[in-house]
Amino acid sequence: MRGKPGRYGIRILTYDCTLREGAQAKGISYSVEDKLRIAMRMDGFGLDYIEAGYPYSNPKEAELFERLRSVRLGKARISVFGSTRKVGARVEDDACLSAIVGSGMSVAAIVGKSWDSQVRKVLKATPEENLAMIADSVGYLAGEGFEVIFDAEHFFDGYASCADYALETVLAAERAGAAIVCLCDTNGGSFPQEVGEVTARVAGLLKAPIGIHCHNDNGMGAANTVASVMCGASMVQVTVNGIGERCGNADLCTVVPNLQLKLGYSCVPEGSMGTLTNLSRFVNEVSNVSNDERAPFVGEGAFAHKGGMHADAMRKDEGAYEHVAPDLVGNRRRKLISEVAGRSAILGNVWEVDPGVGRKSEAMAAVTERLKELEHEGYQYEGAEESFELVIRKVLGNYKPFFTLREFKVIVSEPSVSELNASAMIKVGVEGEEDEITAAEGEGPVNALDVALRKVLDRFYPEIRDMKLTDYKVRVIDSKLATAAKVRVLIETSDPTGSWNTVGVSTDIIEASWQALVDSIEYKLIKAEAMGKASGNGPDAGGAGQNIRSGVGR
Amino acid sequence: MRGKPGRYGIRILTYDCTLREGAQAKGISYSVEDKLRIAMRMDGFGLDYIEAGYPYSNPKEAELFERLRSVRLGKARISVFGSTRKVGARVEDDACLSAIVGSGMSVAAIVGKSWDSQVRKVLKATPEENLAMIADSVGYLAGEGFEVIFDAEHFFDGYASCADYALETVLAAERAGAAIVCLCDTNGGSFPQEVGEVTARVAGLLKAPIGIHCHNDNGMGAANTVASVMCGASMVQVTVNGIGERCGNADLCTVVPNLQLKLGYSCVPEGSMGTLTNLSRFVNEVSNVSNDERAPFVGEGAFAHKGGMHADAMRKDEGAYEHVAPDLVGNRRRKLISEVAGRSAILGNVWEVDPGVGRKSEAMAAVTERLKELEHEGYQYEGAEESFELVIRKVLGNYKPFFTLREFKVIVSEPSVSELNASAMIKVGVEGEEDEITAAEGEGPVNALDVALRKVLDRFYPEIRDMKLTDYKVRVIDSKLATAAKVRVLIETSDPTGSWNTVGVSTDIIEASWQALVDSIEYKLIKAEAMGKASGNGPDAGGAGQNIRSGVGR
Repeated sequence: MRGKPGRYGIRILTYDCTLREGAQAKGISYSVEDKLRIAMRMDGFGLDYIEAGYPYSNPKEAELFERLRSVRLGKARISVFGSTRKVGARVEDDACLSAIVGSGMSVAAIVGKSWDSQVRKVLKATPEENLAMIADSVGYLAGEGFEVIFDAEHFFDGYASCADYALETVLAAERAGAAIVCLCDTNGGSFPQEVGEVTARVAGLLKAPIGIHCHNDNGMGAANTVASVMCGASMVQVTVNGIGERCGNADLCTVVPNLQLKLGYSCVPEGSMGTLTNLSRFVNEVSNVSNDERAPFVGEGAFAHKGGMHADAMRKDEGAYEHVAPDLVGNRRRKLISEVAGRSAILGNVWEVDPGVGRKSEAMAAVTERLKELEHEGYQYEGAEESFELVIRKVLGNYKPFFTLREFKVIVSEPSVSELNASAMIKVGVEGEEDEITAAEGEGPVNALDVALRKVLDRFYPEIRDMKLTDYKVRVIDSKLATAAKVRVLIETSDPTGSWNTVGVSTDIIEASWQALVDSIEYKLIKAEAMGKASGNGPDAGGAGQNIRSGVGR
Repeated sequence: MRGKPGRYGIRILTYDCTLREGAQAKGISYSVEDKLRIAMRMDGFGLDYIEAGYPYSNPKEAELFERLRSVRLGKARISVFGSTRKVGARVEDDACLSAIVGSGMSVAAIVGKSWDSQVRKVLKATPEENLAMIADSVGYLAGEGFEVIFDAEHFFDGYASCADYALETVLAAERAGAAIVCLCDTNGGSFPQEVGEVTARVAGLLKAPIGIHCHNDNGMGAANTVASVMCGASMVQVTVNGIGERCGNADLCTVVPNLQLKLGYSCVPEGSMGTLTNLSRFVNEVSNVSNDERAPFVGEGAFAHKGGMHADAMRKDEGAYEHVAPDLVGNRRRKLISEVAGRSAILGNVWEVDPGVGRKSEAMAAVTERLKELEHEGYQYEGAEESFELVIRKVLGNYKPFFTLREFKVIVSEPSVSELNASAMIKVGVEGEEDEITAAEGEGPVNALDVALRKVLDRFYPEIRDMKLTDYKVRVIDSKLATAAKVRVLIETSDPTGSWNTVGVSTDIIEASWQALVDSIEYKLIKAEAMGKASGNGPDAGGAGQNIRSGVGR
């Protein structure tokens, strides 16, 4: 890790577009309730502006703005999006501008064209008419009392094509009363060097603060945003997790920590930065998108270190392979568990169950020995740390099963007799209770078993109802044995407070899936107990439960 | 879209680290066969160097290098990775350097430290000893006939901490005979501006070509790589899809098209660029990693346009919301409904079955239509080209089934009644023969079915005895549905003359495995017929069999 350069005190405004551009991304669709939850969360995080929607394109957003008018936010201001008036129209008659006025908000972002060839080809208007459209629209909304942000669409492509015209468009917006002029790399194809140079040129010409809005089509969205700030931009338009059309937008979770933690700018309250990972996972959850393991700063693997050289160096110097400390963004260091990862990595996991275990204790030796055996059998705990926690509990005697399998039988028939071609019968026992037996059908044998298992446990542990399997992976361990080879099944499970990963290994995919399912449910039940929400049927897990990690931001 | 600046003719060497650093990423584990397949594919793509492994850290890689010694590559050279000698040791006695020499390759990349504080804290060595370690190790390998690439670890952090010492380390490597000096942003925390400036400084001091190796921890991996090239680096170290530790490495699929298509450098043969998307998906498939929909250039959503403003503008100007044309990287534009994959790619596959099919023929349209349907169902033929060949044969009427499934039933019991917990009953029919029924037990349901299928076919097609399943992969298609989701099963099968890959898709893993197994056997039988070794019971496949590809390098 290196120190920050001296840019303290330079304030950069944050403007989030997740609710508008994120909502245009493939597979994303927010309800009004979703948008409100995300907006509240962003406000709590300390963002300056939240672009909530585009009421002209989606009349249903009237309800959103109505709800927003009665929501009390802290620092954040809600912005409403639209575009400059139509060619040859009067601003007073323009439906898009009317929708903005009708929103009742006090900040408006309107997009207008800065690329000469697009004015001709797409608008089919003269360059002069486009300038008038910009001036009229900005002036109208400013006159209606809005703080107007002018989004100069395709600004960098326009500048490359005809710099003078591109500059005229932003000057027109400024003269008409734009509070902020935002330069957009709409196609996401520019490079940091040019974005920096062009921003500096514009900054020399305008008095209004400059914003930057970048897409990620060439993988430079965040780099371009940072370059623009370094050359004079003072507002960043971003989306959480980079959600947006095509390759997405500049990612708030990359841009903001880079600016604030690494370059010394001031974007959000200092206390907020430690909840960044939380914010990222929350927005993914509401958006029904999987977390990107490799996401800078906030990914689950962002601070994961494998064995060998790196793990050894990390013991000697924590900054050896980390550019920032993970806790600054609410993330955590992971030492990927493997036999080669060495003692200190394992010890960290043992301490999460029982901080009293000594580095050279018998208990520690027993855990290491057990891990070695299990790895030899094909288990792999990197990416399945919760299963490893259960292994540790078993070795330390800090574990009692919540239920015992008496028997299962799974049958698959082709051709199928019903719509679902697989069925499972299952019988389990819970201490002090009568055995329960049930059956279920499913889309394939693993699904049938999964459904049957939840069904049979429901009477004993209703708290498992809020958990859901969110990912299921299978890996063949020794591919040479092909279908007779051992398979490793990895399951990711989520509940409203977080997600966890478990593993199973067997030559039989059903047996391996079973193990991972059982671990997943047991982890959930231990976690529920630790949170004081267990329904009371499970065994006493002792004081160790206090160490169960919970929450999304572990 | 904008034109390219005039950087034509500047040649940038490509050095891929997927097989070494990618293999260190969480959840990735390549078999020797996987590594060979990827290496052959990269060679076909036109990369200059392929870093195949780190034999000192993993003694199993001896087999890999042995296999590689007998593989004939086109342009690519295989590089072997290691580090400088241990503190106070003699190079002749150093196990890591010996492993490099023992690999039998002619290119070696060795990593050494350039950050003064890491030399003290991690190596616990003096700065002078570290310089000696670099010089000795580079000199030793150069003396052994290697082209030596010196990877200057933590170069940018080291430069920021003590520029003079960092520069001394690369000068020491150059003096000792390093052919290329590669500057590494090991922690992935640098910014393009500084990477560019520092590269320019080094370029002014060294005669040796400069390489750049960036990680992506602050989301700038690709931007830093491009910035370095713009300031004088002439080799890029990258990984396919950015696979690598933590947040990954600079992504080949972002860096190479940026340099070649947008900035005018020359990295790979011009004809290769159109297969970039294919390469990306192939490596994901072999790595058992999902495609990143939002990946620049190669993501399925990279050129996806939603309705409204953008779709309208796209009708008027194709470049309105695209920074490059998708077909340049073998990707495709997606509008409201998903369009068909590149016609010319499909045509290539069709011609392998029947060279007489015209580009605009009805047969070609029918294949395209069928592919669209199958992709919609979740099939993916990148990495399963032999299944696609069977699809083409079916559409062209150049296919007759070798056998027909009458019925199967698979049962899995826990606890197991015998040592093998799964059993399968199967009945098949072959034209002109009496139906055959048999049963088998197996290690799990798929194995039981596999064994039973081979057993029941043995009487009709004894030539399948020499084929064996060598890999078996399962991918969940929509992970949100967890165990009820569709799964895609990929099977690799080998016989003494080569290997082939087939695919099946279903919500039921057994049904999906069945499809892939059947494809695999049918492909084998077609191949056997074409080689004139068929036992005579199968249908006449005509002359098309001559186009059946074999060997590892497809």
